[in-house]
Amino acid sequence: MTDSSRAAAGVVTLLTDFGTRDPFVGVMKGVLLAFEPSLRIVDLTHEVPPQNVAAGAFWLARSFAYFPEGTVHVAVVDPGVGTARRALALAASGHYFVGPDNGSFSSLLPQASEVRCIDRAFVRRELTARLPLARGDSATFHGRDVFAPAAAWIARGGRHADLGPPVTDSPVVLPPSPPRVEIVDHFGNLITSVDWHAERGDPGVHIRGRRLRWVRTYGDAEPGECVALLGSFGTVEIAVRDGSAARELGVAPGELLQLESPTH
Amino acid sequence: MTDSSRAAAGVVTLLTDFGTRDPFVGVMKGVLLAFEPSLRIVDLTHEVPPQNVAAGAFWLARSFAYFPEGTVHVAVVDPGVGTARRALALAASGHYFVGPDNGSFSSLLPQASEVRCIDRAFVRRELTARLPLARGDSATFHGRDVFAPAAAWIARGGRHADLGPPVTDSPVVLPPSPPRVEIVDHFGNLITSVDWHAERGDPGVHIRGRRLRWVRTYGDAEPGECVALLGSFGTVEIAVRDGSAARELGVAPGELLQLESPTH
Amino acid sequence: MTDSSRAAAGVVTLLTDFGTRDPFVGVMKGVLLAFEPSLRIVDLTHEVPPQNVAAGAFWLARSFAYFPEGTVHVAVVDPGVGTARRALALAASGHYFVGPDNGSFSSLLPQASEVRCIDRAFVRRELTARLPLARGDSATFHGRDVFAPAAAWIARGGRHADLGPPVTDSPVVLPPSPPRVEIVDHFGNLITSVDWHAERGDPGVHIRGRRLRWVRTYGDAEPGECVALLGSFGTVEIAVRDGSAARELGVAPGELLQLESPTH
Repeated sequence: MTDSSRAAAGVVTLLTDFGTRDPFVGVMKGVLLAFEPSLRIVDLTHEVPPQNVAAGAFWLARSFAYFPEGTVHVAVVDPGVGTARRALALAASGHYFVGPDNGSFSSLLPQASEVRCIDRAFVRRELTARLPLARGDSATFHGRDVFAPAAAWIARGGRHADLGPPVTDSPVVLPPSPPRVEIVDHFGNLITSVDWHAERGDPGVHIRGRRLRWVRTYGDAEPGECVALLGSFGTVEIAVRDGSAARELGVAPGELLQLESPTH
Repeated sequence: MTDSSRAAAGVVTLLTDFGTRDPFVGVMKGVLLAFEPSLRIVDLTHEVPPQNVAAGAFWLARSFAYFPEGTVHVAVVDPGVGTARRALALAASGHYFVGPDNGSFSSLLPQASEVRCIDRAFVRRELTARLPLARGDSATFHGRDVFAPAAAWIARGGRHADLGPPVTDSPVVLPPSPPRVEIVDHFGNLITSVDWHAERGDPGVHIRGRRLRWVRTYGDAEPGECVALLGSFGTVEIAVRDGSAARELGVAPGELLQLESPTH
Repeated sequence: MTDSSRAAAGVVTLLTDFGTRDPFVGVMKGVLLAFEPSLRIVDLTHEVPPQNVAAGAFWLARSFAYFPEGTVHVAVVDPGVGTARRALALAASGHYFVGPDNGSFSSLLPQASEVRCIDRAFVRRELTARLPLARGDSATFHGRDVFAPAAAWIARGGRHADLGPPVTDSPVVLPPSPPRVEIVDHFGNLITSVDWHAERGDPGVHIRGRRLRWVRTYGDAEPGECVALLGSFGTVEIAVRDGSAARELGVAPGELLQLESPTH
């Protein structure tokens, strides 16, 4: 986070486990717009399983690069809200990231050019200056009271030094995932933790004692067949054509899989 | 709603019970953008329980102040759509509000500086002028045909007198809530109707025969412990750490609670 | 799609069966904003039943006219993603449409002034130029890799000829629906395939052996009564006041109904 922050795209993304039933996400957007009415705000997802930091970190790392350089990404899966856990703002790979120091940024930290600890008193003062009728000092909703103001500050080109001091020790990093099912998506497809590239050939994928046929796309499977393929976010994926692999295999996130190297 | 309306922020929020499964909310946004392409539209929530006016009114009153002054808030929980119930536009606390006259604005009315009855013929004429291919005269979807056009009219700085005549009698007001669970949020936390401030000390909270420990934030509870705390919207809240208080206590909205004043 | 495309409204709508649990829709928006930061993006719905092309086509045809002329509508219900099915861009009724050639545009095609086959290599080159860190060549996510770039290209006033060659044969068209329940909406109302106008009088509506009373709006029904009425999108609708017609009648999409002409 240097002066190049001035080049921020004015785009802010939100990733939370808040769901969409309550106006939690809506009021975060109100705060963002109170800081800078011209921001464009995109929902990445608000249906991270409650308090599942690893699932949020997985999607954040896989999604950010589809946004313009300079986008500010807010990730709030935050079981430790209100405790002593730090609030971070970081710059990495030409993007900015804001959220709790709990592993949400694990795979982004090695590329980080700067990491700051957000000064809560500062962002709350700024929030109150813009929203005099609003309470902004809760112990349980830092998405609204800390992270939205910090993100808006960055997105409108504010001085990063004002946000808080550089972090010198290491932020929290999650242990790397073994080969496993990381996400069950909306269609029941199993998105795994295993990175893959088409050039590496067709691996053998085993799960629940079955060896799955490797295909290029869903339509290449027989109806009802369970197959493996290269998913759209660059990982091995398991799918059933016109069906749910999760239901068909009876598999939930965390299920391990085995990979066999391609034979040429 | 005076000439100061010219200072409208260009932000419009939407709160409905329409859900997100159908394009009902989407076409409301289309109408808003047809009136004024530069509007920024924020979803407050669309998952108010169907026709639960009180739940919508609760969230609207608690949320509006997190948006910039001049924001137009559209609230459409509207079991009486198409009947003789009036359509209102009001100005209160530096914000604007649009929706049916059914209690949705109960706690905002005492602060209202002006209340108008929306002239449906006027807004439909304006809608048709901008969207000649669209039908805008339904008896069942005033969110699209009445309230979106009225909100857009205000948000783009239109003359309020054109919207319709001032209301001189009293709009519908809901009876005040007793101390009760008002909302079960996405996490299963119980958000109550009881306003509280930290300076008032720690109250004793009783529900279902249990006395709950008062804590500052979720992380101060023992895992699985059911506690009470000051919620982020300024009311007493009941939560279970890493769990659902609603499920743990078997409690739904409407459940009464008892409060004991703090002992000093 | 002629030079009048320069007048595009800068509004893009999205209709998919992707759900909102995963960041699929979010990254499509990232791609759109990477092409043109000033776009305003509206979610029509992302809860089309998985792979139900007909349901998506129904809502698209009923909704597009509520958006400003020149809006680009992206419809991605795409069971054939990655197979030989074509990717289309069309202009019809003053709006633009982008999506797979699988029947999604059935009722829009007769009004189409131009239909083009999207050149995937072209849009992927454009995507990569703007998002060098992102993969944009998947076989399973053309919403992100093909349709979002094509929509952005149109919405920012790009030359349509660049998108790909005109289609000369006939795109896929779904067979017309018999009189049936097409959609069960969020409230449990049954939205049918039968177009109706108030001037045609009150039809007799029969479903599951019942003849339903025709009313003007929900509030005209007795509590619990199952009635028929003119729905807000111009079709016959079946509803239960303060209840769910789908549950009350035990009816799902596809259920047939019978219509009797009005007797004068």
